[in-house]
Amino acid sequence: MPLVTLLDYAGVAVFAATGALAASRKQLDIIGFLFLASVTGIGGGTFRDLILGVPVFWVANSFYVVVCAAVAVLVFFGAHRVESRYRLLLWLDAVGLAAFAVIGAAKGLALTGSPTVSIVMGMLTAAFGGILRDLLAGEPSVLLRPEIYVTAALAGAAVYTFGVLAGLPVPACYVAGFLSALIVRGGALRYGWSFARYKSRPGRRPEDIP
Amino acid sequence: MPLVTLLDYAGVAVFAATGALAASRKQLDIIGFLFLASVTGIGGGTFRDLILGVPVFWVANSFYVVVCAAVAVLVFFGAHRVESRYRLLLWLDAVGLAAFAVIGAAKGLALTGSPTVSIVMGMLTAAFGGILRDLLAGEPSVLLRPEIYVTAALAGAAVYTFGVLAGLPVPACYVAGFLSALIVRGGALRYGWSFARYKSRPGRRPEDIP
Amino acid sequence: MPLVTLLDYAGVAVFAATGALAASRKQLDIIGFLFLASVTGIGGGTFRDLILGVPVFWVANSFYVVVCAAVAVLVFFGAHRVESRYRLLLWLDAVGLAAFAVIGAAKGLALTGSPTVSIVMGMLTAAFGGILRDLLAGEPSVLLRPEIYVTAALAGAAVYTFGVLAGLPVPACYVAGFLSALIVRGGALRYGWSFARYKSRPGRRPEDIP
Repeated sequence: MPLVTLLDYAGVAVFAATGALAASRKQLDIIGFLFLASVTGIGGGTFRDLILGVPVFWVANSFYVVVCAAVAVLVFFGAHRVESRYRLLLWLDAVGLAAFAVIGAAKGLALTGSPTVSIVMGMLTAAFGGILRDLLAGEPSVLLRPEIYVTAALAGAAVYTFGVLAGLPVPACYVAGFLSALIVRGGALRYGWSFARYKSRPGRRPEDIP
Repeated sequence: MPLVTLLDYAGVAVFAATGALAASRKQLDIIGFLFLASVTGIGGGTFRDLILGVPVFWVANSFYVVVCAAVAVLVFFGAHRVESRYRLLLWLDAVGLAAFAVIGAAKGLALTGSPTVSIVMGMLTAAFGGILRDLLAGEPSVLLRPEIYVTAALAGAAVYTFGVLAGLPVPACYVAGFLSALIVRGGALRYGWSFARYKSRPGRRPEDIP
Repeated sequence: MPLVTLLDYAGVAVFAATGALAASRKQLDIIGFLFLASVTGIGGGTFRDLILGVPVFWVANSFYVVVCAAVAVLVFFGAHRVESRYRLLLWLDAVGLAAFAVIGAAKGLALTGSPTVSIVMGMLTAAFGGILRDLLAGEPSVLLRPEIYVTAALAGAAVYTFGVLAGLPVPACYVAGFLSALIVRGGALRYGWSFARYKSRPGRRPEDIP
């Protein structure tokens, strides 16, 4: 199996698992698990393919949907064994983020040749699945958490893109991009890495503004 | 008028009505009614057509938009006569869910031939309009309600898909799929049908996790 | 530079600025600014191009993304000088709304020839960026604010569409549509213009309904 296909299935499966974990946190039924797992697992790639104007990947190959369903069933019967489902969700989300950042960048670069588009597609593809899951499950958005998130996707997409443009072997670029994103996001989760936040003052609530 | 066109207009009209009822619950103005009715009425089908890579149905035939506008005006002047708008919203939503589950499955099957894609398209098309309405109107998501929802769409899409694959007459499959979804969702609304929920323990809030 | 290109860049830049201001209200880091600015700036047009089935504008010309990034950096270093960021956000949003209403209508009319599609595309394109920003940043939706919002987009799109159909010179229609939308939304912001709201009674919470 080519490396890119492996990364693609890995990204779909781990994002599906985060969707199913969110369903277990909300105590949904088995169909709720299947639904949230599918939407989260295939959401990012669907978005990527729509933007790039290529056929949506799971419409062309419905095995991706089967993977999501299998993951949902596994989580439904196994999630109670996990001590902290939210921490597991965040770590799996990190793996999915890294996989989708590189694949999004790879598809963007192959189709347009533009490094800007490539990096933006990496960021958007990687962030979209988690955003969708958090919106649908009513979780606080992973995007607004204090520690580094989108930056990790940006790093992975940029490493891949500049590696390929520099003429390095493509499989090495996949691995380097994936590991870069995973290390940055993993460090953020483990050690709380964050950038200086915009501190001046928080926004007031609209009704308090004269 | 062919049966599928009738189902399509019915689905658009009743989802538009649920959008307008949500607008009336939020006390929006007439334009707010038009906007929420249009987005809810054409949202699911727009999503379906984008994913399947076919021209968006209301761009090709703008009469669908006129239907949404007419429904919005009707609801604007009639909604105060209804005793419980939220119950009416849920029942109309059930009819729209049943119509879109079958049409989504039919379009998916016709275009790809894959039963998996067909059933997933039925589920997603049927669920998307309600999700969009609840997000935009700030209503609690119909997806997270305790009783069966997505399962009804799944049932309708599956009945249609396997009926067609078994060689039954297509109009009979439309009717059987529509009724299956409507009965499942209607029973859930009337008798509170639900699956065993995932009970182990609810999710903690992220800030309570060490 | 043709007038339509100028309007397009102006719309992208001011919506990007509103995204960055929302990021500053949420005290995100610089990458959060870049992300919200990009999503808000290019969101409406992305949606428009997907619906109309044409290549997404920023994939074809990635300079739009560079504009969003530059705006995000400017706001990151300048937002603390602004007395009320939320008022500035609302006014910039008004300018973006006006620009995108006209461009959405123009693209819709050019591709389909249908005035209904043209006006709906104007409304949806203009409203989509703000909706996306408010969803992602957790701001109260601009759509549910009491004063006129979508109506302004409708006015701009209608003025443009009927002007072109009446045979008026296209650049004059751009200007007239833009100014109509800006005046209607500006008046709503300055003087609290609003339509009669649906007053009968607000919706009860779902759990209070027997």
